Amino acid sequence: MRILILGGDGYLGWPTAMHFSSRGHQVHVVDSYLRRRAHREQGTHSLTPIATSLPERAAAWKEVTGYEIGVTEGDVCDWAVVERLFREVRPEAVIHYGEIPSAPYSMKSREHAVFTQYNNVTGTLNVLWAIRDLAPDAHLVKLGTMGEYGTPNIDIEEGFIDISHKGRTDTLPFPKLPGSLYHASKVHDSTNIHFACRVWGLRATDLNQGVVYGIETDETRMDERFHTRFDYDEVWGTALNRFCLQAVIGHPLTVYGTGGQTRGFLNIVDTLQCVELATLNPAGPGEYRVFNQFTEAFSLMDLADLVHRAGKEYGLDVGVDHMDNPRVEAEEHYFNPVHTKLLDLGLKPHLLSETLIESMFGVIERYRDRVIPEVILPRTRWAPGGR
Amino acid sequence: MRILILGGDGYLGWPTAMHFSSRGHQVHVVDSYLRRRAHREQGTHSLTPIATSLPERAAAWKEVTGYEIGVTEGDVCDWAVVERLFREVRPEAVIHYGEIPSAPYSMKSREHAVFTQYNNVTGTLNVLWAIRDLAPDAHLVKLGTMGEYGTPNIDIEEGFIDISHKGRTDTLPFPKLPGSLYHASKVHDSTNIHFACRVWGLRATDLNQGVVYGIETDETRMDERFHTRFDYDEVWGTALNRFCLQAVIGHPLTVYGTGGQTRGFLNIVDTLQCVELATLNPAGPGEYRVFNQFTEAFSLMDLADLVHRAGKEYGLDVGVDHMDNPRVEAEEHYFNPVHTKLLDLGLKPHLLSETLIESMFGVIERYRDRVIPEVILPRTRWAPGGR
Repeated sequence: MRILILGGDGYLGWPTAMHFSSRGHQVHVVDSYLRRRAHREQGTHSLTPIATSLPERAAAWKEVTGYEIGVTEGDVCDWAVVERLFREVRPEAVIHYGEIPSAPYSMKSREHAVFTQYNNVTGTLNVLWAIRDLAPDAHLVKLGTMGEYGTPNIDIEEGFIDISHKGRTDTLPFPKLPGSLYHASKVHDSTNIHFACRVWGLRATDLNQGVVYGIETDETRMDERFHTRFDYDEVWGTALNRFCLQAVIGHPLTVYGTGGQTRGFLNIVDTLQCVELATLNPAGPGEYRVFNQFTEAFSLMDLADLVHRAGKEYGLDVGVDHMDNPRVEAEEHYFNPVHTKLLDLGLKPHLLSETLIESMFGVIERYRDRVIPEVILPRTRWAPGGR
Repeated sequence: MRILILGGDGYLGWPTAMHFSSRGHQVHVVDSYLRRRAHREQGTHSLTPIATSLPERAAAWKEVTGYEIGVTEGDVCDWAVVERLFREVRPEAVIHYGEIPSAPYSMKSREHAVFTQYNNVTGTLNVLWAIRDLAPDAHLVKLGTMGEYGTPNIDIEEGFIDISHKGRTDTLPFPKLPGSLYHASKVHDSTNIHFACRVWGLRATDLNQGVVYGIETDETRMDERFHTRFDYDEVWGTALNRFCLQAVIGHPLTVYGTGGQTRGFLNIVDTLQCVELATLNPAGPGEYRVFNQFTEAFSLMDLADLVHRAGKEYGLDVGVDHMDNPRVEAEEHYFNPVHTKLLDLGLKPHLLSETLIESMFGVIERYRDRVIPEVILPRTRWAPGGR
């Protein structure tokens, strides 16, 4: 299958590219290096050393495996880039990771908020118009987030909910309560993609993904140069990955507030499995599918306890620090989202275990000299004056 | 009250400015003249001659009434403009009409779609940050649209719906099915404003307005120079206003498809009443209110029949032309939206009557020499190949 991967230089984009390439698909990646630039601006970098550019990554991949991954260095907000890509690659599937994925980034300032929404919404609109006019049969596999839903007091369904109201019924988009202006940008995307399917007959799968953890996939393990990035700073890092790093460097685990916040989580190898299942089983013409993409729900305290226990096994003394929550969010809430559609397609979950955490400890230890501890603590607050 | 009106040069913005000014409020308007520029680019203009700029409008207003309306020519997408406005005006209420209001405009091309969403979302984000940081107690009165809801098969509530699901209940944002990428931009705004109220404690009223008709208000009638604009072209015109103009110039009424499409409508004088009621009865801190702002629901055929009858009384021979629907929309559907919140605040509706239509005929006749008939027929199609 001819597969175009937007955001192919990222934490998930690059492993996804290798995953499909190693299975014989024709893969082409595009990335604007926005994340690398943002890191340079704040003086940080990935824990794992990664090749300096996409062409280098692709060259190493070809050298070792013989497979070719096409590369474009460019921005999907630039229509000239998107148009050329679609004409040249003629994609059958478009896997769209090409967005700013950080809640704290979007909450830093007005400029960051506007840029996040501009970047994410414009890139996705460009992709929708490109599919409409240049590849109408291509299937869009778009990365959304479980954070679009927030924490309503009812079970979260997969994208749509049957509502009975005053004696009538309809199946309608599940209401959204995004927890940051980044999460809001993903809600905007969902609205636009749904529109494109309803009105233009496009086919799309929106993967409302939970928090991904893990560093290694079958392909990253093949060669040091195939590593994916690993972020632990307050802007780009995510919960479990950061906890593991804190355990290794002897930094207390930074639990925001009580730690009762519960979210869906999944292993990076399951992200690859889910994206592959969605891609190989495309939505029909005019169909907008939403899959809730996670395998297990944990509270932050569940994770802190697990990392504490795994640390003990491993010989690490892990402390836990409850800090003032920099975000505005419910710390105790109901959370029971449905997530059966990917299981129905054949997903075999890799559940979180102490063994996995200990193997993450191992990788992190190899690179612990690269850690910049000052960038771990949260500095971005959701509300002025920390309301 | 110190009132800042964004989009104060528009069809509704200018009459709103005069309405509040004549009641003794301190009114400041800002506008980027985007609509005037778009008209010039397509070689069209308002049926009614309007003053060439906001300063001229304000000067005439002062000359006749003695009241002063402050004027800024600038774009709310430009943060420097917004910041200066908020520091200088120190608004207690911000009435936000400052967006591109056209569904066909947004569907013309990729560029138009991206620009519509960029313009509307960015301007509103700027306003939210300005209120947050410079006027946290100011009340935002934002013009949304009934078109955010689309035509679900259940009764439409005012912004939120009580959902019982699997034995639990919550009150959640009403699901949205916008009918164009313009309507989608308003959905994005709603998501962002709701977020700002939940997380920053802002106060906001979102007026999900129906289609407005009419040309005259108490203030526009005072002086020729106080006229508001009247658009009838395919991009900026709206249903009933266009039908009235077609009746006067002997053009068959252009009904898209069967004409079973049903929408909420209101008289321009009721828009002013509603905006005043919302402004004088502000939302509380952290409150995000949604009012469905219309007084009556009509199908396009209801309106065509009404204009036909009124035309007969008036001596006009009115034909009706069912054309291929350029939009992708349900032509027969359920439509029963709740709209009681503004009535509860004291709205006294001016219902549509043949008399009102005949008085519109009169105004239109005065300017019929200015009509450019070639721009009336729809050229913008929602789907490629008219799917």
